[in-house]
Amino acid sequence: MTSLLCPDAFLSPLEIDEAVTRALAEDLGRAGDVTSIATIPDGTRGHGRVVARKAGVIAGLPLVEAVYRKLAPDVDIAAHARDGAAVEARTTLLDVAGPARALLAGERAALNFLGHLSGVATATAAFVRRIGNRPTRVTCTRKTTPGLRALEKYAVRCGGGFNHRFGLDDAMLIKDNHIAVAGGIRAVLQRARAVAGHLVKIEIEVDSLDQLREVLDAGGADVVLLDNMDAATLRQAVALVGGRLVTEASGGITLETIAAVAETGVDYASSGSITHSAPNLDVALDIDIRDQNSVIRSQ
Amino acid sequence: MTSLLCPDAFLSPLEIDEAVTRALAEDLGRAGDVTSIATIPDGTRGHGRVVARKAGVIAGLPLVEAVYRKLAPDVDIAAHARDGAAVEARTTLLDVAGPARALLAGERAALNFLGHLSGVATATAAFVRRIGNRPTRVTCTRKTTPGLRALEKYAVRCGGGFNHRFGLDDAMLIKDNHIAVAGGIRAVLQRARAVAGHLVKIEIEVDSLDQLREVLDAGGADVVLLDNMDAATLRQAVALVGGRLVTEASGGITLETIAAVAETGVDYASSGSITHSAPNLDVALDIDIRDQNSVIRSQ
Amino acid sequence: MTSLLCPDAFLSPLEIDEAVTRALAEDLGRAGDVTSIATIPDGTRGHGRVVARKAGVIAGLPLVEAVYRKLAPDVDIAAHARDGAAVEARTTLLDVAGPARALLAGERAALNFLGHLSGVATATAAFVRRIGNRPTRVTCTRKTTPGLRALEKYAVRCGGGFNHRFGLDDAMLIKDNHIAVAGGIRAVLQRARAVAGHLVKIEIEVDSLDQLREVLDAGGADVVLLDNMDAATLRQAVALVGGRLVTEASGGITLETIAAVAETGVDYASSGSITHSAPNLDVALDIDIRDQNSVIRSQ
Amino acid sequence: MTSLLCPDAFLSPLEIDEAVTRALAEDLGRAGDVTSIATIPDGTRGHGRVVARKAGVIAGLPLVEAVYRKLAPDVDIAAHARDGAAVEARTTLLDVAGPARALLAGERAALNFLGHLSGVATATAAFVRRIGNRPTRVTCTRKTTPGLRALEKYAVRCGGGFNHRFGLDDAMLIKDNHIAVAGGIRAVLQRARAVAGHLVKIEIEVDSLDQLREVLDAGGADVVLLDNMDAATLRQAVALVGGRLVTEASGGITLETIAAVAETGVDYASSGSITHSAPNLDVALDIDIRDQNSVIRSQ
Amino acid sequence: MTSLLCPDAFLSPLEIDEAVTRALAEDLGRAGDVTSIATIPDGTRGHGRVVARKAGVIAGLPLVEAVYRKLAPDVDIAAHARDGAAVEARTTLLDVAGPARALLAGERAALNFLGHLSGVATATAAFVRRIGNRPTRVTCTRKTTPGLRALEKYAVRCGGGFNHRFGLDDAMLIKDNHIAVAGGIRAVLQRARAVAGHLVKIEIEVDSLDQLREVLDAGGADVVLLDNMDAATLRQAVALVGGRLVTEASGGITLETIAAVAETGVDYASSGSITHSAPNLDVALDIDIRDQNSVIRSQ
Amino acid sequence: MTSLLCPDAFLSPLEIDEAVTRALAEDLGRAGDVTSIATIPDGTRGHGRVVARKAGVIAGLPLVEAVYRKLAPDVDIAAHARDGAAVEARTTLLDVAGPARALLAGERAALNFLGHLSGVATATAAFVRRIGNRPTRVTCTRKTTPGLRALEKYAVRCGGGFNHRFGLDDAMLIKDNHIAVAGGIRAVLQRARAVAGHLVKIEIEVDSLDQLREVLDAGGADVVLLDNMDAATLRQAVALVGGRLVTEASGGITLETIAAVAETGVDYASSGSITHSAPNLDVALDIDIRDQNSVIRSQ
Repeated sequence: MTSLLCPDAFLSPLEIDEAVTRALAEDLGRAGDVTSIATIPDGTRGHGRVVARKAGVIAGLPLVEAVYRKLAPDVDIAAHARDGAAVEARTTLLDVAGPARALLAGERAALNFLGHLSGVATATAAFVRRIGNRPTRVTCTRKTTPGLRALEKYAVRCGGGFNHRFGLDDAMLIKDNHIAVAGGIRAVLQRARAVAGHLVKIEIEVDSLDQLREVLDAGGADVVLLDNMDAATLRQAVALVGGRLVTEASGGITLETIAAVAETGVDYASSGSITHSAPNLDVALDIDIRDQNSVIRSQ
Repeated sequence: MTSLLCPDAFLSPLEIDEAVTRALAEDLGRAGDVTSIATIPDGTRGHGRVVARKAGVIAGLPLVEAVYRKLAPDVDIAAHARDGAAVEARTTLLDVAGPARALLAGERAALNFLGHLSGVATATAAFVRRIGNRPTRVTCTRKTTPGLRALEKYAVRCGGGFNHRFGLDDAMLIKDNHIAVAGGIRAVLQRARAVAGHLVKIEIEVDSLDQLREVLDAGGADVVLLDNMDAATLRQAVALVGGRLVTEASGGITLETIAAVAETGVDYASSGSITHSAPNLDVALDIDIRDQNSVIRSQ
Repeated sequence: MTSLLCPDAFLSPLEIDEAVTRALAEDLGRAGDVTSIATIPDGTRGHGRVVARKAGVIAGLPLVEAVYRKLAPDVDIAAHARDGAAVEARTTLLDVAGPARALLAGERAALNFLGHLSGVATATAAFVRRIGNRPTRVTCTRKTTPGLRALEKYAVRCGGGFNHRFGLDDAMLIKDNHIAVAGGIRAVLQRARAVAGHLVKIEIEVDSLDQLREVLDAGGADVVLLDNMDAATLRQAVALVGGRLVTEASGGITLETIAAVAETGVDYASSGSITHSAPNLDVALDIDIRDQNSVIRSQ
Repeated sequence: MTSLLCPDAFLSPLEIDEAVTRALAEDLGRAGDVTSIATIPDGTRGHGRVVARKAGVIAGLPLVEAVYRKLAPDVDIAAHARDGAAVEARTTLLDVAGPARALLAGERAALNFLGHLSGVATATAAFVRRIGNRPTRVTCTRKTTPGLRALEKYAVRCGGGFNHRFGLDDAMLIKDNHIAVAGGIRAVLQRARAVAGHLVKIEIEVDSLDQLREVLDAGGADVVLLDNMDAATLRQAVALVGGRLVTEASGGITLETIAAVAETGVDYASSGSITHSAPNLDVALDIDIRDQNSVIRSQ
Repeated sequence: MTSLLCPDAFLSPLEIDEAVTRALAEDLGRAGDVTSIATIPDGTRGHGRVVARKAGVIAGLPLVEAVYRKLAPDVDIAAHARDGAAVEARTTLLDVAGPARALLAGERAALNFLGHLSGVATATAAFVRRIGNRPTRVTCTRKTTPGLRALEKYAVRCGGGFNHRFGLDDAMLIKDNHIAVAGGIRAVLQRARAVAGHLVKIEIEVDSLDQLREVLDAGGADVVLLDNMDAATLRQAVALVGGRLVTEASGGITLETIAAVAETGVDYASSGSITHSAPNLDVALDIDIRDQNSVIRSQ
Repeated sequence: MTSLLCPDAFLSPLEIDEAVTRALAEDLGRAGDVTSIATIPDGTRGHGRVVARKAGVIAGLPLVEAVYRKLAPDVDIAAHARDGAAVEARTTLLDVAGPARALLAGERAALNFLGHLSGVATATAAFVRRIGNRPTRVTCTRKTTPGLRALEKYAVRCGGGFNHRFGLDDAMLIKDNHIAVAGGIRAVLQRARAVAGHLVKIEIEVDSLDQLREVLDAGGADVVLLDNMDAATLRQAVALVGGRLVTEASGGITLETIAAVAETGVDYASSGSITHSAPNLDVALDIDIRDQNSVIRSQ
């Protein structure tokens, strides 16, 4: 099943299994696909074609495969694309052949995964494209759909973006409240460095050049988050840092502003919208139940 | 906890508990909020204010409450709004007081629920507003975010919409493949009626007036889905049905076209975008850790 | 695995997996089949024959198969019947060959499923048989064994019955308390219709012909539940309805009275006893450990 | 919550929580009690009375309590009986007051537990009553409803019966296949004793007096299961054993034959029917929504 | 998968699946093996060799296999040993070939199981070896690592030990508090015997010969636990019992004292340290990614 | 419940709940504490005292509390110590009063957590103590007991140690295989840096000074793991690094060698034995059932 994963990213088979089980459970409910049971004779076979109706970057094919393997272990699947692929409109992504009832029962769960995750990947890729050759990297945030964080972070990677923290626990991000309670920037960085282990990075958020200078003076940070600065200020900040820290711009960055942000030379630009507000990519499953003899290349 | 629920809709306490547990698990990870543990002394208390930064319809407050009860059972919560409320920008929705570490640790999980579900409710309400006094009802589809169907269907209700099927099992929806395999519209409706119990409604999809006439002749359907028809055809279809069936318009209905669709007199208009592509509502949690003596009205 | 399912009914593979895992967990406990581990050498193979000792209608064979696949993925299974089959006493239903320890360890879990669900199917079929050629349909209720509702509803279908609501959520059933609070039959039906979506049927319970007349006058109901009426009253009720609503008789219907109930022309007759009080069908697993060379037809 | 448990038996709070969660999940489904949400105003309170309509032995009250606590943590409960109580017809067992929607939503889950488990307890008590003063004890088997073993074993205790093995793992029960493979009774008992720890009892099944003599000669068994013997043979068997082993009669024992079996002096008589085929006890929940000021004694 | 299990012991496939899923979940986290994803090209294959670096008794190979099957279902595994085997230092236990990323991702989870359980087995075997030809048996206690009881009890069996109770529920163990509340040894044994079923053994703890005499006089116990007695007192106790009860010595028994304890003739000697304080056995996985053509014997 | 946590470390309430539920499930089994049910009258109350019998550093008190809250929500608990405390032998840590049956039923689960985690904390503290005033920090590894990683990492913090990676996903650790496949140290570091996000630290393992020089030349690493070097080589390595990277010594470090390792000036010294081979701390629960009127200070 791993062969459909984006080569440079990872989704745990445990995560896939859990997500697919939950999605099927909510769609099959207690009685299953009552329409197909009533109208499609048991034993009828069919053929389905998963198609991207619009152009975009694909993420979620391993979940499509898992949906069908769960419903009918002997289903026959041939993929024509892999997660991370940028495809044109009307591209066939995957063929699936098997029991017609299973093809119909899995359709919505499969497409909901594929449409949502490809939507995230496509939104990410749009930011990446606007940056062009500049070295700035697009990164996501923790503003993800509840329960789908690992999947959406994976989709960001499929779209060419980079991942910020996966949770509260895999890096420190010091914000205004932490600074205030600890008694200032120098104090908070000392305290953080004293507690953090050697494999935990420390990022600190600043919203002015003065604060940034304090951070540089204090030492102890690995990354500085430059919050809600306009392009001119960002450029000054990047110059001030002079490569001593990794820089991240954050706050209200859109497709319209990303090029200007990248132009400042900042290392990372983060956007919550690529995970929490990306529209679905339009994907469909064209099922032909009568075409039972169609031969598909087995994977 | 039920008092924050929208009065006319329902979200199971089991569903709330499961969703909140999963969201916290993915955010706390294995080591929890390492930043706050390092920088905020244990025992520090604080006060948070959940605010809608933009105008919208609210959904998800019971999940905000559940997030905090799970992290700190003795947290003090005072709600100023309830799910289903339409609020202006900069409205305070809820105050929460308790351990500062818990306030910070729960922030993102709480806001991710509230932003996402209020986004769905707000998108739904926008459709409802465009319809105005016309009797047409807005309804969702099964194009939901995987694993969040019950929550999103609830948010649709908060926004003034109605729910379509919750899954494949609670009503029949006969589509082209079912018709083709069964040998035509009359045959498929007979077969469906023979198998369906007395509490299962039967809807059938048609894409032409000819098909609609066949459905009316055949009998046995409760609802007809008029797929991808323009307003003129829809109007003819509604006239043809003459109240004998419930009518639903579907396919590419947008905020721009919904008024025209409603003008045709169709009973229901469905939209997948209100669940799968609604942007988050902008919500925030303003935390003041130094304001420890602020008194909030306990619920 | 689906091929052992009753052709006209459905049991989700997720449901089967969960039920079988739970049943095996409670029987294997923490130390497994200590008797067989002590007395049957590892590597010994055997052959088992699942037999219906008494005549009845079979339900549960896919669970028998799942029990053995879970214990020994390479077990060899040949089924001679399928769920929904009416069999004579002493009918062999299924042969299974594999590791002797696994055959013995799975015996009780497999038979408990098959005996219980076949009991439900057989009890249902007994009602169906008494009705004979009359068009009345037998339906179950929500009076099911806790945790086994989907399985028992499936067994009712295997026995030739129809399913009532699967839960509180897939149809409305208005009872005395709802009527009283809403202020009468007309008011409650108006309120229900205003809230219900277009795919939710509304049933209302009446216990007198006067109440029935109110329901017919008010409109808005799809089904009327005629509660605890004697055959004469039922007949009057059916005449009064005159096909405008679907009718369901309920309350104390037994094998002795079902024919008389059907004689009244009512559309559905419901019984809680077919799920909550059906005795097990007597099924057994005859294991022959020495017969290791017996060839069974692989499925 | 423990105070409603039968004093001499046990049901784990983990088991109660899991069973109740599962039962509510299957009844609330994805949309909850749509009828009450539509027709009972939010905030309405009510009062319910759990009643045994028929005489019987009660089991399951802690599950009734748990159902309501799960739906509405602040519900007010007053119990008038405890599991294990033998009650007359029309006995009020428990009063519950709280939100009307919660009272209605929990009704079926609560009654399904109470009816099923009280059915098991009542069936057990019927056997116990027939035995009268004789020292023979009634015991259950592993022929239980899948997934409900711990609950049904508890109900057997409530009815005055004793528990056989809870699973394959807490005692050895040597049957014909074990004997055959091991090469006879002496060999199998030696092998079993060699492997069994000091806290594992060994029971062996015999179906003739000759086999019984072999068991007595071989030594090593703690209990002998006398399978399918008529009363005369049983009496001989008991005499032969002479108190050296615990004796258990098994196979086709019914309410009609249990007294004769007990008369033989056998120590235990086992019955599968008390768990797998006990009809539900008729229990009901009388809800009065208008009676909101009724005072109930808080527990 | 069962063929790697110790022939005389049992580990449920459900238990293995659950333990392996949990271990992989905590190691893969949300982003998986980020190092290998970054540095090992997708599609690279490799070969791993599981080696015992120190001499010991092996337990846990089926979990090693399950870890790899979960990560890469088509992995190729060849085992050279089986649980329960006593091996020399530098023994190859198992070869595994498959995707290099999977080999690396599963390494730590696989070794943590194998090292921990082989540690328990090896500690047990050390006690057994000190006993030599004496008939005393080593038994474990309930002092196990939380959540791993079934696995550790299995490892004790692999090491040649016997299992004490698996939990509070599969035998009675009467201690000082029980005796005190019941009003003495005779009273407590009577009460226990009255409640215990025929398949539940009763053990009672005594800490003096006087107490032991009371137990022998009272009757009703199956096993006596001789707590914290020195060798001389133990010998007297064993003589006093004279074979009428099974005897178990407990309390501070170490590798240094076990031979002296066995010399007293006691039937069982129990030790908590073999489960709660056994050091890991040193095991390793030697991975060779370049050796892709190495042929391993498929199982 | 948080107040018993070590002030500078964290254990998620979700993790605590899950671990405690699993531990109780395996100890209560299906029938619960059959001994106490038989011999301690329902309603009897008692008082327990959790005592450290030996000196050590405490970890696990929140789990003790959670065990008892789960069994008897109204139990009365007074803690006299907090996780992270270094205590003398015979120190009372916590008093608990409540139903006697619950006190006894929870004893083993509570002590197994406390003994195991305090064992890890105590083993860690022993290393810390040997280091004395030197700035070297002790860190754990991923060699943890399967399923208990978060708990054991927390216990390491209680003992004064620092945490290494929690899993494969929260930092990169480049080893020999990664280097070999990527084609050398420079290549692997480039590749890692290209893929790693800005919040992921990169550690690389070297086993010679030559390799270390390559790492220093290549740049891109944050931490270097100095594997299996003797003290003299370590000292040279630290000098070579000259503060440009964080240094970690690893491999066979014991209580005997830790001071010499620290003397080399290395920043971190890691040990797997503090998690995988730490002996339990000897803790006990002294229960007095007759002392029912003892007043304990409620928390």
